[in-house]
Amino acid sequence: MRLSQSLIPTLKETPAEAQIASHRLMLRAGLVRQMASGIYAWLPAGLRVLNKISAIVREEQAAAGAQELLMPTIQSADLWRESGRYEAYGKEMLRITDRHERDLLYGPTNEEMITSIMRESVKSYRELPQNLYHIQWKFRDEVRPRFGVLRGREFLMKDGYGFDLDYAGALLTYKKMMLAYMRTFQRIGITAIPMRADTGQIGGDLSHEFHILAPTGESGVFYDATFEAGDPAAAADVETFYEQMTTIYAATDEKHDLAAWEKIPDERRREGRGIEVGQIFYFGKKYSESMNFTVTGHDGTKIFPEMGSYGIGVSRLAGAIIEARHDEAGIIWPDAIAPFRAAILNLRQGDAATDKICNELHEKLGADCLYDDREERAGAKFAEADLMGHPWQIIAGPRGAANGQVELKRRATGERLELSVADALAKVMS
Amino acid sequence: MRLSQSLIPTLKETPAEAQIASHRLMLRAGLVRQMASGIYAWLPAGLRVLNKISAIVREEQAAAGAQELLMPTIQSADLWRESGRYEAYGKEMLRITDRHERDLLYGPTNEEMITSIMRESVKSYRELPQNLYHIQWKFRDEVRPRFGVLRGREFLMKDGYGFDLDYAGALLTYKKMMLAYMRTFQRIGITAIPMRADTGQIGGDLSHEFHILAPTGESGVFYDATFEAGDPAAAADVETFYEQMTTIYAATDEKHDLAAWEKIPDERRREGRGIEVGQIFYFGKKYSESMNFTVTGHDGTKIFPEMGSYGIGVSRLAGAIIEARHDEAGIIWPDAIAPFRAAILNLRQGDAATDKICNELHEKLGADCLYDDREERAGAKFAEADLMGHPWQIIAGPRGAANGQVELKRRATGERLELSVADALAKVMS
Repeated sequence: MRLSQSLIPTLKETPAEAQIASHRLMLRAGLVRQMASGIYAWLPAGLRVLNKISAIVREEQAAAGAQELLMPTIQSADLWRESGRYEAYGKEMLRITDRHERDLLYGPTNEEMITSIMRESVKSYRELPQNLYHIQWKFRDEVRPRFGVLRGREFLMKDGYGFDLDYAGALLTYKKMMLAYMRTFQRIGITAIPMRADTGQIGGDLSHEFHILAPTGESGVFYDATFEAGDPAAAADVETFYEQMTTIYAATDEKHDLAAWEKIPDERRREGRGIEVGQIFYFGKKYSESMNFTVTGHDGTKIFPEMGSYGIGVSRLAGAIIEARHDEAGIIWPDAIAPFRAAILNLRQGDAATDKICNELHEKLGADCLYDDREERAGAKFAEADLMGHPWQIIAGPRGAANGQVELKRRATGERLELSVADALAKVMS
Repeated sequence: MRLSQSLIPTLKETPAEAQIASHRLMLRAGLVRQMASGIYAWLPAGLRVLNKISAIVREEQAAAGAQELLMPTIQSADLWRESGRYEAYGKEMLRITDRHERDLLYGPTNEEMITSIMRESVKSYRELPQNLYHIQWKFRDEVRPRFGVLRGREFLMKDGYGFDLDYAGALLTYKKMMLAYMRTFQRIGITAIPMRADTGQIGGDLSHEFHILAPTGESGVFYDATFEAGDPAAAADVETFYEQMTTIYAATDEKHDLAAWEKIPDERRREGRGIEVGQIFYFGKKYSESMNFTVTGHDGTKIFPEMGSYGIGVSRLAGAIIEARHDEAGIIWPDAIAPFRAAILNLRQGDAATDKICNELHEKLGADCLYDDREERAGAKFAEADLMGHPWQIIAGPRGAANGQVELKRRATGERLELSVADALAKVMS
């Protein structure tokens, strides 16, 4: 993509309304713009991040056997009256009346709707287990939206729902989803730690939150350093993995257990702050019973399926990752979800040899690179590339171009190398 | 995908509420379920259709130089007060009040919002032209939602917005978008005809609608048979293409011009019915002036950009295509957007040779095929595959399997061939 022809409106000044780093940087790097309190438009570079996160989520959900569907954003109030949550949900639910005076709402979550779909479609034990998810915009009418996309009102969530015939099946689904989540976060390029959590509005008695470590996190977190080492998702099987994840100590301040904490050797105790980016729940028959969803078992008896729900905050993740990965100069995107894998900085637009090299690089790297072809001074191009946080910068100027050389900069380390065009390409694409 | 493990709830009976073929078939084939009046959930097979249509739209938009972004579904009423459309829009606009008593609305279209984004971001003539689009859910509170997704309330639309410095630029953008749309419909596998149209709510004085021919279409259409022949999008350049598209006769009954019609030779006159699946508008400075969006020109003067908007009804297309392509037995999907390119029908689940062949086919064809591995009689499997409209059916039974043979059926023609597994695969994948 040519920057001169793109809507990537970077800002030199820090917007006054932004209190935290990710909010400031998302505005400054031209990723999002606020359209109303807690409601954002995702500009082209920001949308690329959302899409890359979503693609990884989808691949790991498919690998875990989950099916994707797409439920609407607007729901009927009657569905929520069935489960008893319509009155209980309170002011965070955006309630709407249509032209025929029917009560609607903008869905904050979809337990009721997916249960109604399954109730209508699935009749026999032979059709279970099933695990269904969608990636859809949700709305929660936060009393005080803040921190940009971290606590917005309209937000993109992956929410999944498991239906099993019995407790053992539902627990296995829960474990598989925890593993899928850890693999998802690992592929995105961040460390997330699962922590025992309260179940709140959703219900049930087993839940874990996934926290990214970042100094601005909303929760205090306490964990065993074992989480920082190695590859938690590499465990041989799901049972071993779950056993490890739930026996190594990790807790938010709400659930912190001093007695257990003090049993961990001093040098392995870690305290910090975390941003919640996902949560999983097992809640059994809460919705199948209240909404009367049964399937016929082997012997003809009626079975209320056992359910769980599984959420990842897709738009929130974009902000949380920036909280965890930035410096004074800007964002430091992980390779897997950067809007562009590489930027090409042309330091002398109009110089034939430099233009030629840049055009060649742009063509070879394709849509996943951003070509800064503007007539701007070098300093501005460096600063914007650092701000936007491209994992690689390929810097081309007339001196190097005369010898077919470019400079390759790695954003995360600051490392710079003089390389031939072919070697630079090979490194960026590897 | 294994049908035994999928949420594809086909129906044997025709749902009473469905009046037209596409609505009946989308329910019967397990593509969608109604969640509230005019509001649908897209089940896994239906979502695959939406995604395939969207992917083609995206590729053709990118090829035409348009950038993708993603605007929110909820908008501030203040934005619409600026253009004067908040009061004018009437009851089709879903109006919402949030917990702080602020007026919001569920966006039915995005002219105001994209203009406000551009106004904030683009200051100089050097940054234009730009063409931006998103694919996002919209809401129009139809007084009487009907015909399934053809006239729903929550619907998926691609809407794009062009910003140019002058009339000539805006007209060129309009022509390029018409060409991109014709290429899009052609790749989807349907014939769409552009017809001069009124501009309605959007404003302006140049507009074309794109109609798919189908007997249940809402509009009467009159056109020259030249549209049925050849490849309209193959014109050498955009100017020639536009010249052709706008001189060959085509009109809806509202715009029908008897004098022009009678000049067409009898044998080339075609009358039918059409379903509108897209519309494009040139409306000049209507929004840039009312919302005060200017850029600075070469000479320092202020320029109000010239705008157009460009819509494709993505969810509506799914229904419209079925109206145009079905028979007594079910849907006849075009190859490019079928939920699954092929179905594998195992006529003797449990027979070792048949299972082996089916598993091999399933593995080789990957995620874009549906394996009917249920323990059902052959007749039920045939009927469901015809209903779902997979372009290819690969039918495996014990007799053929013993010789490594399968039967390959082409849904559109009914043609059947006995082939080796390798030859069947080659044909399906070609």
